[in-house]
Amino acid sequence: MNKKMIGKLVGVLFFLEALFMLPAIAVCFVYGETGAPLRGFLWTVALLLALSGALYGVCAKATREFYAKEGFIIVALGWILLSAMGALPFYISGEIPHYVDAFFETVSGFTTTGASVLTDVEAMSHGLLYWRSFTHWLGGMGMLVFLLAVVPTGKGAGYSIHLLRAESPGPSVGKMVPRMRQTASLLYKIYIVLTVLCVLFLLAGGMPLFDSLCTAFGTAGTGGFGIKNNSMADYSPYLQNVCTVFMALFGVNFSVYFLLLLREWRGALLDEELLLYGGIMLTAMFVIAADITPLFSGFGEAFHHASFTVSSVMTTTGFATEDFNLWPQLSRAILCILMVVGASAGSTGGGIKVARLLLLFKSLAAEVRRMLRPRSVNVVRVNGRVVKDEVLRGVNVYMAAYCAIAVASFLAVSVDDFSLETNLTAVLACFNNIGPGLDLVGPASNYSLFSTFSKVVLSLDMLLGRLEIFPIIVLFSRHTWNRTR
Amino acid sequence: MNKKMIGKLVGVLFFLEALFMLPAIAVCFVYGETGAPLRGFLWTVALLLALSGALYGVCAKATREFYAKEGFIIVALGWILLSAMGALPFYISGEIPHYVDAFFETVSGFTTTGASVLTDVEAMSHGLLYWRSFTHWLGGMGMLVFLLAVVPTGKGAGYSIHLLRAESPGPSVGKMVPRMRQTASLLYKIYIVLTVLCVLFLLAGGMPLFDSLCTAFGTAGTGGFGIKNNSMADYSPYLQNVCTVFMALFGVNFSVYFLLLLREWRGALLDEELLLYGGIMLTAMFVIAADITPLFSGFGEAFHHASFTVSSVMTTTGFATEDFNLWPQLSRAILCILMVVGASAGSTGGGIKVARLLLLFKSLAAEVRRMLRPRSVNVVRVNGRVVKDEVLRGVNVYMAAYCAIAVASFLAVSVDDFSLETNLTAVLACFNNIGPGLDLVGPASNYSLFSTFSKVVLSLDMLLGRLEIFPIIVLFSRHTWNRTR
Repeated sequence: MNKKMIGKLVGVLFFLEALFMLPAIAVCFVYGETGAPLRGFLWTVALLLALSGALYGVCAKATREFYAKEGFIIVALGWILLSAMGALPFYISGEIPHYVDAFFETVSGFTTTGASVLTDVEAMSHGLLYWRSFTHWLGGMGMLVFLLAVVPTGKGAGYSIHLLRAESPGPSVGKMVPRMRQTASLLYKIYIVLTVLCVLFLLAGGMPLFDSLCTAFGTAGTGGFGIKNNSMADYSPYLQNVCTVFMALFGVNFSVYFLLLLREWRGALLDEELLLYGGIMLTAMFVIAADITPLFSGFGEAFHHASFTVSSVMTTTGFATEDFNLWPQLSRAILCILMVVGASAGSTGGGIKVARLLLLFKSLAAEVRRMLRPRSVNVVRVNGRVVKDEVLRGVNVYMAAYCAIAVASFLAVSVDDFSLETNLTAVLACFNNIGPGLDLVGPASNYSLFSTFSKVVLSLDMLLGRLEIFPIIVLFSRHTWNRTR
Repeated sequence: MNKKMIGKLVGVLFFLEALFMLPAIAVCFVYGETGAPLRGFLWTVALLLALSGALYGVCAKATREFYAKEGFIIVALGWILLSAMGALPFYISGEIPHYVDAFFETVSGFTTTGASVLTDVEAMSHGLLYWRSFTHWLGGMGMLVFLLAVVPTGKGAGYSIHLLRAESPGPSVGKMVPRMRQTASLLYKIYIVLTVLCVLFLLAGGMPLFDSLCTAFGTAGTGGFGIKNNSMADYSPYLQNVCTVFMALFGVNFSVYFLLLLREWRGALLDEELLLYGGIMLTAMFVIAADITPLFSGFGEAFHHASFTVSSVMTTTGFATEDFNLWPQLSRAILCILMVVGASAGSTGGGIKVARLLLLFKSLAAEVRRMLRPRSVNVVRVNGRVVKDEVLRGVNVYMAAYCAIAVASFLAVSVDDFSLETNLTAVLACFNNIGPGLDLVGPASNYSLFSTFSKVVLSLDMLLGRLEIFPIIVLFSRHTWNRTR
């Protein structure tokens, strides 16, 4: 294993994280928070720069050898270390007194989960609230994709594909353009343009600039940290609708936007995953709206809240306008299932991803056809192209790993003796990077009730969910470490 | 499709069902229940014989063409029709006034689920109680396996393998002996010997003959219909322990017993599925016993109830000595997971089956190895033998279908607006053929609260679970019916 290369890249990541704390420091100055919050950031930046320099110095002479294994390890290790360091400002400033809580909150931020241990968000300083929301934006598209986009990798940098593959969500990575660096840079350009649009639409509705930025970061990363104690409930219906639309947009596979840029309208709008994603979303919106109409003044108001909630839960954002924990069982069941389904592959959303479901259903249908006509040829096609057996096998193995981890986490969290619904939805909400679950972790509550052990388990679930399991498994696998190659 | 052959075999099944009602009729006479219960049986037997004769007459000249498709259809159709007819005695006698309830109860019997809509079991006549428990015994090993074992199939009867494959649980059918008819007959011989042993042990503990027979049927089929309102709670600890042991024994793959008969001790006792099955069961017993010790006089009593409950839930029997719905959350979570895991392949138990989990874990490990060393050869072995890719693919597709059906049923049942826990565990308990779930369908309750729609959904889940999904899918598949071949 190329340990030096891993050390070098972690050094670069630490440098980038220090850089990304500068806007939060600026916010501290704007709001005159020059006491504890500023101290928290400055100490952390100093530590990051020192570590970055040390790592870069020690590992400067790394060889270029870089395989899938190295890709997985740098992604897993990078995310864990960035979270561990990103938690320091909360801890040093004293605004989150326990380090495990600060770590949980930061993992929740980077993984775009949005599950919080804070009981009173509005008591936080602006600088830390800004950093908290900004982690969503950074985690949404990925820190290593950013690294690929901006850092010159030199000629023949073979590791780009392995990094992109390990960090990007979905069953297969679509190369938009032949060179990885261009793909990464294109992804970030689309991401930035959509985020800016979201900020502008929010400002147009009269939302203050600070609120607009934080809300847009939470929307773009499909994260869901709110800066108000009741999430989005107090904003105007217009502002809520802006979020509904943008959450849904950030849950779309970004390659669809790329095709739109190329004016390939047919390919973009008839993309099978996009159609299934839209179909599930609209169906859920209408069924839930009908189910909850008795709770509101009429179907119109019910649809307003149903559409916001479905968009928020399915894209795994987690903003709330209403306490959907109090809705009828059919709506709660649908939301529970949407939590697991998640958004599209290649979006900033979490969950199993619509693309994987599409492949599962297609291979199921192919298997039934094969049973009925053993001698016929049965291939699985998506968007007209044959899907490789390798990809299908990958999806199946992913599902098995997904179930195993969900079950193990559910057992571990059950030790706290809360209700089955609390434990199950807490695990689903963290593993799928949503944030709020049901019952005691519903949108009107938070995760502060859990024990330290459960918070560590749930933090790990968030990382497993965001990085799609395998990088973390490889990092902790015996096989990775017990042999030199 | 060979419709005549299907008709002919359904005719034979109807004849067998009429035959199997004779012991229940005898019970009616013994207990002097010659009114409504006897009338119910006699009308049903008459109808069965008439239909059987008519079908056999019309379809006598069936060709021998018989493929996997025909195997699936006869199994799916056979089970549905046998349940529809088996429900008639309950309905005609008036002891279950609504036909859908009687159908639910009979499907629950044949599929060895043991979920009941009856609020007062002790009010039933002996004849109907006997029939209700006997359906467990028949469904446990399967009616078509019985048919294969006793009916001469003539030379070159190619359909045996397709029938056995479609009705037997597990990822692959192990041929014990080269000829299918001998395998089927051997399975029934082992089944009968174990059942007789169970009856003898129960009689030795002072249980009345009628109770012993019904309890043994429920144990052997891993069904779980009790003949007392509080299931097994009032029987002595000795009798409960007999059930604990025999439930666990009937959850073992019957090929292990076959190997024992051949004195292949090593192969039998070191069978990987057996070890995993035993390992999960013992671990769950000890953890739950420790978890519930505060509720009892000490670890001993706690272990007594924990071992009975784990054996009952994991083998998907569903007998109860204690209301485990009131236990702490860790125990409830473990029971919930055991419900899904289920018993061994090739046993009378339901669930996903330990063999499938074993294959899933092994292919997961192989995939991780493949990621780390793309060029190494990775095959999955069980008991030293390489598992075919076809079998692995089948397991994956089964899991996908399993999840899809569980999710769809959960949504459908949620329309009744009971708690999420009730709905989820009701679906799991029916789909995995267990019987009791948690909350409102816990062991101290029953399924009478559900709407007719939900009862139909849950009946279908029981059939899908017992027949392992694909026969039912094939029966209702467009592809099966819209083309003549």
